[in-house]
Amino acid sequence: MPELRRDPVLGRWVIIAIERARRPSDFKPEPPAPPPDFCPFCEGNESKTPPETFAFREAGTAPDTPGWRVRVVPNKFPVLGIEGDLGKKGHGIYDMMNGIGAHEVVIETPEHETSFTPLPDDHVADIVRAYQARLLDLQRDRRMVYAMVFKNVGKAAGASLEHTHSQIIVTPVLPRTVMQEMSGCERFYDYRGRCLFCDIVEQELSESRVVLDRDDFVAFCPYASRFPFETWIVPKRHESHFEKITPDEVGHFAGVLKETLLRIETAIAGGPYNFIVHTSPLDKGDIEHYHWHVEIIPRLTKVAGFEWGTGFYINPVPPENAAEFLRDQELDGGVKLHGEEK
Amino acid sequence: MPELRRDPVLGRWVIIAIERARRPSDFKPEPPAPPPDFCPFCEGNESKTPPETFAFREAGTAPDTPGWRVRVVPNKFPVLGIEGDLGKKGHGIYDMMNGIGAHEVVIETPEHETSFTPLPDDHVADIVRAYQARLLDLQRDRRMVYAMVFKNVGKAAGASLEHTHSQIIVTPVLPRTVMQEMSGCERFYDYRGRCLFCDIVEQELSESRVVLDRDDFVAFCPYASRFPFETWIVPKRHESHFEKITPDEVGHFAGVLKETLLRIETAIAGGPYNFIVHTSPLDKGDIEHYHWHVEIIPRLTKVAGFEWGTGFYINPVPPENAAEFLRDQELDGGVKLHGEEK
Repeated sequence: MPELRRDPVLGRWVIIAIERARRPSDFKPEPPAPPPDFCPFCEGNESKTPPETFAFREAGTAPDTPGWRVRVVPNKFPVLGIEGDLGKKGHGIYDMMNGIGAHEVVIETPEHETSFTPLPDDHVADIVRAYQARLLDLQRDRRMVYAMVFKNVGKAAGASLEHTHSQIIVTPVLPRTVMQEMSGCERFYDYRGRCLFCDIVEQELSESRVVLDRDDFVAFCPYASRFPFETWIVPKRHESHFEKITPDEVGHFAGVLKETLLRIETAIAGGPYNFIVHTSPLDKGDIEHYHWHVEIIPRLTKVAGFEWGTGFYINPVPPENAAEFLRDQELDGGVKLHGEEK
Repeated sequence: MPELRRDPVLGRWVIIAIERARRPSDFKPEPPAPPPDFCPFCEGNESKTPPETFAFREAGTAPDTPGWRVRVVPNKFPVLGIEGDLGKKGHGIYDMMNGIGAHEVVIETPEHETSFTPLPDDHVADIVRAYQARLLDLQRDRRMVYAMVFKNVGKAAGASLEHTHSQIIVTPVLPRTVMQEMSGCERFYDYRGRCLFCDIVEQELSESRVVLDRDDFVAFCPYASRFPFETWIVPKRHESHFEKITPDEVGHFAGVLKETLLRIETAIAGGPYNFIVHTSPLDKGDIEHYHWHVEIIPRLTKVAGFEWGTGFYINPVPPENAAEFLRDQELDGGVKLHGEEK
């Protein structure tokens, strides 16, 4: 069982992954991983993953056999375990609890693609529906507080398997960054009486940082972007919880997500990136001051001592330039450019 | 002039380095840097850096000529500029100010070493004295709020030049991470009436995470370590400001810093790391609830989407194991091992 430990200074939680523990002596930097000659996520290899918790599959096909479009399985090496109780306790000035939670993998296609951007829009919509279905199911477990949906693309962004997939990690405590985002938004709400993200959408739509402005969603490079080409996708309708996305919105969101990622992948020549769904806690009802959204972080710059020490970031590309460059990408397959919509 | 922009959600400041701005199209991932055939930090090349702001040098030698042991110069490509006023202003819901501050480089030796651990202890003490001298001088500029002393070793940790050096960046606002550390410590002080770091030192000295326990300083792997081999060095005497280190403490600190880094370098086979001096704002007097210290972060694990999204970290090596491994390193040159002191 992994252990959750809390830093007493910052209130930051750390998962000490006892079960995964490698011996410290294994930590020589960057051991070159052998090129995998076998992919457990490809169609036909379903027996090599834990049994699926969810799938979109052809009528009449059995679980854990071919015939699926999107398949969700528990992570074979989970960072948090599903069985047991929290066992919260103190140790002198420190606090800890058992590493209870969930860790699932969303295998986005049976084909060995390295991104989901080559997939048709309706397939990407199925991936989004799979996220939604898992969150609605995991929410029923009252030990689960927060579900993080995220995707690592490329080794430098932390991806260990090439076959395109995303992950869902559900934690038994509210993560620190989420708590800070929510309380920042709450302070704004208390002072101005409006949702900060609704105001951001309104202001961004009249500025030069928009990448895509479509039905229901806007993608833009944020005013205080930490990283070159950092892009956020925000729903225009106020909604605190991602999993409450409507059936119409799923299609629109999938289209904007796919095209935004395609523009980023083209701009940075397939470089590494992460995307992260920022949403409200599973165990809370509607929240007026928080607004779900997606943050996409290309990983082109190194994070060095200064950033680690201060939380200050240095971004060599102004977001206005980044947005213009993303809008100007020529995409194959006739995707409409932002400029053409006007 | 670079621009400082504030994220309205988290209050995070970002330096948009307009002056350094590369064209977005330059951002293809990981351009292989040509091996430098020339080092501007080596003795004899003093004319290739901006004029020195401080140096320990042989009596009778002129500034910006050979004859120095430790030399401090402004960064040739500073992320913040020293000239001008802050010009704080709003832009709709956003806040910005001019990128005023200081950015200096501490060249730690005239020889082309890649780390300062091969240097004699008294040379390392001079490096520490150079940090102190610069902070005491920069403090006289009332626009300057916070000085961050840090070191990046290895490319993956953000180092762009190999010749061993550290950096000092002085910002006109209190960085978010520092503010959070200080307010975490203040909450503890309000509740318990003691400095949290004094309590941490007391508890760590009786636990299994100590790497070195010496006069005036203790080095340990923190209870909630984010990274394998993360190590903190904390002074035993309560002191909020690094620059108030006493002459005796400088020597003890230099010895502990050097040996700790040597143990880490040996353990991780020269892998990349950062160290960061965490101290109190330049513009504040003594603070009872905050305690300066150094955090050393080896960069062996990748930071992926989950960590970025949540501020949660996954550490595959328990700090108890890491500390034992660091204590057990065989060092050349007969450095006393922790176990032998007892």
